[in-house]
Amino acid sequence: MDVKDFLDFGKASMDFIVNYMETLRDRPVLPNVEPGYLSQLIPEEAPKEAETWQEVFKDIERVIMPGITHWNSPNFYAYYPSSQSYASIIGELLCAGIGGVGFSWICSPAFTELEVITLNWLGKMLNLPSEFLNCGNGSGGGVIQGSASETTMICLIAAKDRKIRRIKSIHPDWDEHIIKSKLVAYSSDQANSSVEKAGLLTSVQMKLLPTDNNCSLRGETLLRAIEKDLKDGLIPCYVCATLGTTGTCAFDNLEEIGPICNQYEIWLHIDAAYAGAAFICPEYRHLMAGVQYADSFNVNCHKWLLLNFDCSAMWVKNSKYLIESLSVNRIYLAYDKEGLAPDYRHWQISLGRRFRSLKLWFVLRLYGIEGMQRHIRNSISLAQKFADYVESDERFELVTNSMALICFRLKGDNNWTKELLTRLTERKRIYVIIASLCEKYIIRFCISSRLCQEKDIEFAWKEISEQATEILQTKLRPIEEILTQSSVKSYDDIVLRIENSKHKSNNITQKIT
Amino acid sequence: MDVKDFLDFGKASMDFIVNYMETLRDRPVLPNVEPGYLSQLIPEEAPKEAETWQEVFKDIERVIMPGITHWNSPNFYAYYPSSQSYASIIGELLCAGIGGVGFSWICSPAFTELEVITLNWLGKMLNLPSEFLNCGNGSGGGVIQGSASETTMICLIAAKDRKIRRIKSIHPDWDEHIIKSKLVAYSSDQANSSVEKAGLLTSVQMKLLPTDNNCSLRGETLLRAIEKDLKDGLIPCYVCATLGTTGTCAFDNLEEIGPICNQYEIWLHIDAAYAGAAFICPEYRHLMAGVQYADSFNVNCHKWLLLNFDCSAMWVKNSKYLIESLSVNRIYLAYDKEGLAPDYRHWQISLGRRFRSLKLWFVLRLYGIEGMQRHIRNSISLAQKFADYVESDERFELVTNSMALICFRLKGDNNWTKELLTRLTERKRIYVIIASLCEKYIIRFCISSRLCQEKDIEFAWKEISEQATEILQTKLRPIEEILTQSSVKSYDDIVLRIENSKHKSNNITQKIT
Repeated sequence: MDVKDFLDFGKASMDFIVNYMETLRDRPVLPNVEPGYLSQLIPEEAPKEAETWQEVFKDIERVIMPGITHWNSPNFYAYYPSSQSYASIIGELLCAGIGGVGFSWICSPAFTELEVITLNWLGKMLNLPSEFLNCGNGSGGGVIQGSASETTMICLIAAKDRKIRRIKSIHPDWDEHIIKSKLVAYSSDQANSSVEKAGLLTSVQMKLLPTDNNCSLRGETLLRAIEKDLKDGLIPCYVCATLGTTGTCAFDNLEEIGPICNQYEIWLHIDAAYAGAAFICPEYRHLMAGVQYADSFNVNCHKWLLLNFDCSAMWVKNSKYLIESLSVNRIYLAYDKEGLAPDYRHWQISLGRRFRSLKLWFVLRLYGIEGMQRHIRNSISLAQKFADYVESDERFELVTNSMALICFRLKGDNNWTKELLTRLTERKRIYVIIASLCEKYIIRFCISSRLCQEKDIEFAWKEISEQATEILQTKLRPIEEILTQSSVKSYDDIVLRIENSKHKSNNITQKIT
Repeated sequence: MDVKDFLDFGKASMDFIVNYMETLRDRPVLPNVEPGYLSQLIPEEAPKEAETWQEVFKDIERVIMPGITHWNSPNFYAYYPSSQSYASIIGELLCAGIGGVGFSWICSPAFTELEVITLNWLGKMLNLPSEFLNCGNGSGGGVIQGSASETTMICLIAAKDRKIRRIKSIHPDWDEHIIKSKLVAYSSDQANSSVEKAGLLTSVQMKLLPTDNNCSLRGETLLRAIEKDLKDGLIPCYVCATLGTTGTCAFDNLEEIGPICNQYEIWLHIDAAYAGAAFICPEYRHLMAGVQYADSFNVNCHKWLLLNFDCSAMWVKNSKYLIESLSVNRIYLAYDKEGLAPDYRHWQISLGRRFRSLKLWFVLRLYGIEGMQRHIRNSISLAQKFADYVESDERFELVTNSMALICFRLKGDNNWTKELLTRLTERKRIYVIIASLCEKYIIRFCISSRLCQEKDIEFAWKEISEQATEILQTKLRPIEEILTQSSVKSYDDIVLRIENSKHKSNNITQKIT
C-alpha cells in the first residue's frame, strides 16, 4: 500500500465516518444477523496475494455494517455509553500514525509526560484532592488504563501486597500463604461484574455486601462485615466503592465508608467509571463527598467523556504501592535518567502501552472544559425529559433517576416489563437492556450518544409507550372483563386489583401472565 | 468540532503521517529532551474554552515530536519492533470511527465474528494444529489480547484453576488455599519480564529455570525441577515456554518440554510474541516443532506482523478452561442467542474491548500472505547483512544470530561494549540496547522498521564501527605500547594478551578499563 493508496483510502474512510455518523439515526440500532453470519460472507482463508484498498473498503458496508450494534446511534440507550467524538478519532489516527509503545520514559518521553499532564488536567477538572495529582510533592498521580476492570484489579493487587507487607513487618514469622488465604475484600452487591472478577483473578475473596433501599453501600453494613471477619480471623484489605453502579447509577456512601477504611488500614478504591465524568460539573460534586478518604479513583473517559474506548483514567495517592507490587526489571529495560519520570509499566498489568493520552489531550482542548460540561449537562437534561414522560404515564413506574440513567418498569407483573423489553429488542428501533432491583425487572434507559436530541427522546418514548399499549391491551382485557362491574377509578386501581386477585385466585393470575 | 473541521483535521493528519514516515530517516531516532520537558511547553490546566484544531495540530510538531522515540525509524534497532503500516493505521481509524465495545456477541456481532475469522486465517498461516482454531469441532479458538503480558497471565489463571479443579475432584476435602499455596509454574531465566510478573500478579510461584548454552530451556532441566517440586509437596501447574526470547531470540525445546507437560498434566503456554510471526514462512516452522503439545499459543501481531500496538493473538485448544476461570455474569449482560458465538469477555481480563480484528483483517488483505512473508524474509535478510559485517570485523564477536536479531559485542572487557552502547545512545544516530549473556554484555541489534533498507544497515554499521575505533584507540594505545616489542599478529592476539595481562598485572588492567 503506497502513499497515494493510503491517502485515498484514508480520505474514503474519513468520508465514510462522516456519512456513518450522519445516517446513524436511520440505521436499526441493533443488527439483524444470526450467529455465524459473517462466515457466510468472507473466505475461509487469508488471500495469497494483496487485494486493493477498494476491495477492502467496499466490504465495510457489505459485511461489517450488517453486524454492527450502533453504540453511537441516538437510539442506543443500553449499558453505559461507549463514547466517541471527532476529536478522539483523530487522536486515535495520529496515535496509530506515530506508532511505538511507551512502557518506560525513554521509549517516548512524550507518551509518558503527556499522560502525566493530561491526567493532572482532568484530575483538576474533577476537583480531585491534590494528593491524587502528579504535580504536588507527594507520590500521587494519574495513569491511563485500558478499562475499569484492569483498574479495579491493579488496585486490589496493590492493596493485597500492602497489607501483606504490613502484616509481615509486625509478624515476620507468619506464613505468607496463610496471610493470603485470609485476605478479604468488599464491594456492594450492585458493583460491576468486573469487581467480582478482580477477586477471582487475584484469588482474594470478594464479598458483595447488601445495599440500602437506594442501592447504596452504607458504613454500618461495611463495619459489621469487617468486624465479623476480623473476629473470624480474616484480614480485610480492600474496599471497592462505586459511584454510579451499573444497574441503577447508585452511589455508595463514601463519607461513611471512607473513615472506616482508613481506620482499619483498608485500601479504598473508588469505581466512578460512568458517573465520575459528571464531577467536571460543580453541581454534581456533592456525590463524591468523601473522596479524600480514598487510595485510588477511576473514571472511564471512554464512557461519558467523549473519548473512544480505551481510556480509563485512574489516580492513586501513593504510586509507591503500585510500583512495589507491579515492578519486574530486566537489564534491557534499564536506561539513563531512570526514576526521574514515571515508568508506567510499573503502574499496570502489561509491559506495552499505546499513546492514549493523545486523544485525551485532543478532546480536552477541542471541547474545552465548558464544552465537556455542556455535554454532561445535555445528557442529564435529556434523561430528565425522558423521566418526565415516564412519570406522566400512570402505566409506568419510575424506579430510579440518576445522572443520565432512568430505570423504569411497567406497573404490575414482572413479565409485562420483560415482554416490553423483548418487543423493543426485536423491533430494533431503540436499544435498552434489563436489570433487576428488589426482585423487580426494570428497564435501563441511559442517554448515550452525543448525537441524541429531544426528538430522539420523543421517538424512544413513543416506541416504548406504543409497545406498552399493545402488551397491556392483551394482558388487561380479561381483567377488565372481570372487573367490569366494579368501580375502577384509575390504572393504578386495575394494577392493584390484579395484584390482589393474584392472592385470591390462581386462575386469574394464569390468565394474566 | 464540526464535520468540516473533522475532514480538514483528518486530511492534515493523514498528510502529517505521510510526511512523518518519509522524513523518519532524517530525525534523530532518540529524542533530545530531559525528564519534565513537556511541562515547560504546555499549560498546567485544560483550556476553559474550545481551541481550534489548527492550534492543536501545530503542537504535534512543536511539543510532541521532540519527545518521540521513533520506533518506525529505519535507525531503530532496540527491543523488538512495535510495527505499524498504512493498512493498520486505517484499521485503527475506522475502528475509532465505528466506536462501540464488543464484550459480548450482541454488542456488535461483527466485532466477535471478524475476530474469530481473522484468527482462523492467521492460525492457518502459522500452520497451527487445527485444534487451536475455531473452525473445527472442538472448543479451540483464537482471541485478540492487548499484550503478551495479558496472554501469559490469563493462561496462568486458567492453568491454576484447571489444576485446582482436578485436585479437588480427586481430593474434595483438601483446602483450596493450601492447594493454591503449593502451586508452582516454570519458565526459563530468559523469559520476558512479563512472565515473572504474571506469577506476581496471580500469586503463583514462578520458577525461572536455567537454560543451556543456546539459552534454550531443555526437557531434562524441567523434568528435574518438576520431580523435585513434586517430592517437596508442590503442585506444578504451568509452563511458559518461549519461542524467541527477548534477550537473544532463543527457542525453548518444545519437543522435549511438551511431552513432559502433557505427562504431568501441566498447562503448556507458548510465548512466541516476536518470533512466532516467522512461522508464516514454512522455512522457519521447524522452530515450532512440538507446538502440538501446547495448551495455548501467542504471537504479537504488533511486533513483527505490521499491526499497530495493540494486537496480541492468542489461541487455546480448549476455551472451556478460560471460560470456567474468567466468567462472571450479570442480568444486564444476558441476551438471546447467548452461547452460539464466543463472548470474548470470558476470554480476557477486562469487560470492554475494541474492534481490533478490523486492522488485522486490513493488513492480511492489503499485504496478502505473500506480502507478509516478504516482510519477514526481508527483515531476516537485512539482519544477515548486519551479521556479515560483524563477522568480517575481527574486533567484534557475533554472539547470537536468530531471526532478525543479531547480538554482538566488542571482544575484550565488558566495559568496552558498555561504552560503545553509551556512545551510540548519546549520539542518537541509531538506537540499540544492551542485554547480558553468561555475564557478558551484548548489544542487541534487531531489524524493526518496515522502512529499513540495506543502506540503513550500512549506515548503522559505519556508526558502530567508527565508535568502536574511537573507543579502542583510547583503550588499546597503552596496551600496544606495552606490546610494541612483541610479535602481535592480529586483533585477537591483542585481546588475548590483554586478557592474559589482566591476570599478570593489575596495573595494566587499570589502564585498560
